[in-house]
Amino acid sequence: MTERATTLGVAVIGTGRMGADHVRRLHEVTSGARVTAVVDVDAERAKAVAARVDGCTAYTDPAAAMAAADVDAVLIASPGPAHEATLLAAFEHDLPVLCEKPLTPDAASALRVLEAETRLGHRRVQVGFMRRYDPEYAKLKALLATGQLGRPLMVHNRHRNAASPPFFTSTMLITDSVAHEADATRWLLGHEITAVTVLRPTSSDNAPDGLRDPQFVVFETDGGALSDVEIFVNCGFGYQVQAEVVCERGTARIGDGHALVTNMAGRWGGTIAQDFTERFETAYDHEIQAWADATRRGEVTGPSVWDGYAAAAVCEAGVRALEDGGRVEVELVERPELYV
Amino acid sequence: MTERATTLGVAVIGTGRMGADHVRRLHEVTSGARVTAVVDVDAERAKAVAARVDGCTAYTDPAAAMAAADVDAVLIASPGPAHEATLLAAFEHDLPVLCEKPLTPDAASALRVLEAETRLGHRRVQVGFMRRYDPEYAKLKALLATGQLGRPLMVHNRHRNAASPPFFTSTMLITDSVAHEADATRWLLGHEITAVTVLRPTSSDNAPDGLRDPQFVVFETDGGALSDVEIFVNCGFGYQVQAEVVCERGTARIGDGHALVTNMAGRWGGTIAQDFTERFETAYDHEIQAWADATRRGEVTGPSVWDGYAAAAVCEAGVRALEDGGRVEVELVERPELYV
Amino acid sequence: MTERATTLGVAVIGTGRMGADHVRRLHEVTSGARVTAVVDVDAERAKAVAARVDGCTAYTDPAAAMAAADVDAVLIASPGPAHEATLLAAFEHDLPVLCEKPLTPDAASALRVLEAETRLGHRRVQVGFMRRYDPEYAKLKALLATGQLGRPLMVHNRHRNAASPPFFTSTMLITDSVAHEADATRWLLGHEITAVTVLRPTSSDNAPDGLRDPQFVVFETDGGALSDVEIFVNCGFGYQVQAEVVCERGTARIGDGHALVTNMAGRWGGTIAQDFTERFETAYDHEIQAWADATRRGEVTGPSVWDGYAAAAVCEAGVRALEDGGRVEVELVERPELYV
Amino acid sequence: MTERATTLGVAVIGTGRMGADHVRRLHEVTSGARVTAVVDVDAERAKAVAARVDGCTAYTDPAAAMAAADVDAVLIASPGPAHEATLLAAFEHDLPVLCEKPLTPDAASALRVLEAETRLGHRRVQVGFMRRYDPEYAKLKALLATGQLGRPLMVHNRHRNAASPPFFTSTMLITDSVAHEADATRWLLGHEITAVTVLRPTSSDNAPDGLRDPQFVVFETDGGALSDVEIFVNCGFGYQVQAEVVCERGTARIGDGHALVTNMAGRWGGTIAQDFTERFETAYDHEIQAWADATRRGEVTGPSVWDGYAAAAVCEAGVRALEDGGRVEVELVERPELYV
Repeated sequence: MTERATTLGVAVIGTGRMGADHVRRLHEVTSGARVTAVVDVDAERAKAVAARVDGCTAYTDPAAAMAAADVDAVLIASPGPAHEATLLAAFEHDLPVLCEKPLTPDAASALRVLEAETRLGHRRVQVGFMRRYDPEYAKLKALLATGQLGRPLMVHNRHRNAASPPFFTSTMLITDSVAHEADATRWLLGHEITAVTVLRPTSSDNAPDGLRDPQFVVFETDGGALSDVEIFVNCGFGYQVQAEVVCERGTARIGDGHALVTNMAGRWGGTIAQDFTERFETAYDHEIQAWADATRRGEVTGPSVWDGYAAAAVCEAGVRALEDGGRVEVELVERPELYV
Repeated sequence: MTERATTLGVAVIGTGRMGADHVRRLHEVTSGARVTAVVDVDAERAKAVAARVDGCTAYTDPAAAMAAADVDAVLIASPGPAHEATLLAAFEHDLPVLCEKPLTPDAASALRVLEAETRLGHRRVQVGFMRRYDPEYAKLKALLATGQLGRPLMVHNRHRNAASPPFFTSTMLITDSVAHEADATRWLLGHEITAVTVLRPTSSDNAPDGLRDPQFVVFETDGGALSDVEIFVNCGFGYQVQAEVVCERGTARIGDGHALVTNMAGRWGGTIAQDFTERFETAYDHEIQAWADATRRGEVTGPSVWDGYAAAAVCEAGVRALEDGGRVEVELVERPELYV
Repeated sequence: MTERATTLGVAVIGTGRMGADHVRRLHEVTSGARVTAVVDVDAERAKAVAARVDGCTAYTDPAAAMAAADVDAVLIASPGPAHEATLLAAFEHDLPVLCEKPLTPDAASALRVLEAETRLGHRRVQVGFMRRYDPEYAKLKALLATGQLGRPLMVHNRHRNAASPPFFTSTMLITDSVAHEADATRWLLGHEITAVTVLRPTSSDNAPDGLRDPQFVVFETDGGALSDVEIFVNCGFGYQVQAEVVCERGTARIGDGHALVTNMAGRWGGTIAQDFTERFETAYDHEIQAWADATRRGEVTGPSVWDGYAAAAVCEAGVRALEDGGRVEVELVERPELYV
Repeated sequence: MTERATTLGVAVIGTGRMGADHVRRLHEVTSGARVTAVVDVDAERAKAVAARVDGCTAYTDPAAAMAAADVDAVLIASPGPAHEATLLAAFEHDLPVLCEKPLTPDAASALRVLEAETRLGHRRVQVGFMRRYDPEYAKLKALLATGQLGRPLMVHNRHRNAASPPFFTSTMLITDSVAHEADATRWLLGHEITAVTVLRPTSSDNAPDGLRDPQFVVFETDGGALSDVEIFVNCGFGYQVQAEVVCERGTARIGDGHALVTNMAGRWGGTIAQDFTERFETAYDHEIQAWADATRRGEVTGPSVWDGYAAAAVCEAGVRALEDGGRVEVELVERPELYV
């Protein structure tokens, strides 16, 4: 536990689906941050989102928001083509930025941003490759770091969507979807990708006319590894992201409706938690958040004193049953109206 | 998204293992709350914990903390025998309370708290049965609520600890451990427990001398259901909590290193997420929290502009490979020192 | 591989569902045995079954079949109440017997058979508790025998049928269904059962009127272990038999749509085959049996010379692709009519 | 159940590892066949194997064995280069043949065999692609045949050995190992393979010097499908064969320590048996075989009359416990010496 500075004031640029969701997240989930500004070219949409948050101002110009005294950091969730200008503006204000993926739509513009930040002389930007924060990917990365599986040789990735949105093109399977596996491959292996091959099986009849779906992509890396990706955005049955890393002494797989599963030393399987704080960490987090939220709304919503009393009465009967070896009936008072 | 009141000021009573962890949680994880007071009979310990949190005062007397202007709510994490007095004091100040389990150590004292809250005329207390907030238990409860499995007839519970702490007694297997299954059974089924039977197999040689471990407990409910519990606190291999609810048309099981698994209509298995926001919700939450935390510390820690640039270059090569059907090499500029 | 005597001539007593299936099994699956006699009080049924097997004679009297020169052994698949008389007759002929479960319908008659075989002075009877021959149960037993899990303390059994036949009674849930768990418990643990408790939850609405279904049975053993059984013969979703043995250092579970799964030393999971003969043993057995069966029918049914040729051509292209690092096309001659 | 001809006399050509195992299989496992001849260039080895089987003659010349009156069919398990001559000899005798894979070592010789069988005018040869007889592959093929998953688009194959034998070469990863996936792909999809690409990741340090291991192979088919194969013959952890077929509406996977697992219509999982004959088919087969084998050896090995008696006594106690709702003790007579 470390000392914290005061609450971070965040300007969210772009209030579409992702932007609005990030406003909600910063407001309801994130500890130590608040949304002080929202920016959208659509002034009405910006105002509507700002109205839901105490002390939040609506802007149409990112630069104006960045100049505001209560803005300490910027979250960019506008369309990709707008990112470069906003990033350069943030560099002028020397503000920290979380920029949704893609950084920019092409390598040339990404390179201009890279050069600008390099000129600035210190890192300011975090790119929104959120898989690095997924608990399963994080466990996979941590396992690879232990070295117990040996050197990684191959990665098998599956990336499936139930159905693609109407505007999706064959190219977007690469730039919008496989982009995640490009980053995951680089991050998991610590390699750069040196070559890409795209194989095109027959398209599914469920894919819209003209869409090459599925595709099969193979990355080669400067560490000599291969990473293959099945991308199938009209698979029909759901959203599924899986990765299996094949190493010299074993493999590890995530995304399979399980936790991390390994093949190693003659056995397949996973780890068992060693402690209730590990198993129920999320439960405790949700419990305290739910209590704080309800209390701020003036409500009481969780297990009641009646529940505490009933548990105590059951345990007392249980202790007698343990001591006597038999069956013991539980006695409860009548339940007060307050708890019905 | 609803309007929020201002930040909730919480007094945490008791700064032992659970109390200190709740202070950390309220400080680092919970949105919209802050710790304004900590209370412990050990003044030095209270001061040490308070010193880690801006604007937090240390107390030795719960009543003094409850009287403070910046305390809006109370979290009780002191030993069970101290709960009754603290709860009654909180009722005098009419403050909302989250009380760690057990509510009190026995049914008689729990009944006194029940009567006091009933006299108060409105609910103020949430008891810390945190399993109700575990995502797996929550999914199980939600599935039962749909009615698609039919009426619940039996619950099979497993509750295993790697090893019991030194002070553990045979009675505490019931009052400390099985108490969770007592609440989980009541909550999942919506039944009261009417009788308890405890069966005592031979004890494990790994259990400390004199400890009856494992035990096998059977609850009967007023809805005619049975709920059996294997409690085994020296199982040696880890911490494991499992529950299978057997209903008229199928069963549902949690805690198995999987998500929720059902047996239903000739098939076993689970559901597949339908959307990336469902699959990666936690990843987004962690990403934004990690960014806010690092930014408040003056650091930049996540995927860099180099990562964004490399992904863009890989995708450009991928698009050419898709169009040409062959293998395309990826060209990258030299990596600037800033990103090494 | 050991030297074998000549083919065993078997008389099958009873040609109902189980009997007729055993005739088929002995005829089509079992190596080194043949059915030389079938016996049924229904002479027409016996004749119809005998007619399907070369060199098989139909009888209505078990004793007549047992006296025949080509009968070396007896398989009893008649209704339970007829078993005692047939077993005693087999003892008179000193013939080896496989007797379908139950040995007899009650303990008194079973004791008479026991005394008769004891007088005979050597074992002649194998009782049809077929779970001991199930590969999963066999693996579980073998794992317990290694001692690596420590002493068994509890067994949790699940026994579920999609729906009960019309004649099923509440008592038959014990005598017909739980009888299997009685034997499995005794066999797995090497203990005798010393006491039985039956708990009766509310019956499922899907159970026929008056049937107590499900039931929950707890066995105690002379080794101090508990073995609990959920028996649910109208569960609706399928046939499912599961067992988890809880030992001092770990647990092992079968029947879960998996192979044997253990919890042990901080990990859950199973073993990986170490060799293709282990993984594909059944495949080889089926392959050779299918070839022998087809050949005896004058047919050729499996992979053809075309398949062998195509595989050779693919491998040749693969070797060139390996050497050259690129993509190599496969050349095939036109497929002859014989292989279409 | 169909009428059977008399027992099939089989000549096994080659008595190395596979040949000797097939002799054992035909002798101990297969119903309706017996080994009447074994052939090996090593006369001593042939004699040693023949000596273990009643009525089996040893030969050094395949043609002599094929001319014998008691030889009805031929199983070829000699080294691949010897197959062509033996197959052509079998065609001269017009004998049915099961030929271990590969049919012959290269496409040119396979084509000569193909032309010879075509001239013969009827099929005589089954090639030993035993995966087609594996229960999991068979279920996968059957599921594809139902059409419920739609058209297959891709197959992902994993083929892993713990360690390669000393004589293994980079080329043999294709010709010896991937040959199985070549056939499995053709058989599962009903397509011919039209092109092969081999990608070579960095070799594992655990692979012998100079061996390219692992390799990644991609097949293209005349149905527009892709089938990729990870072949890794020094993976260290075991033998593992997996296949996932990706279709238009779902995927199906085998080889994962489970039965067949599908992704379909928002759910992952597998089927539950509907009947005990399905769940315990193998147990019944093993039970009867074990009984026949023991009986032919003059032994009694399975569950005894004591086991039958004890089960009856337990069930009687259980029925009383069911009727009375309580705990009933089990009474057994003293166990006779015969059953100790």
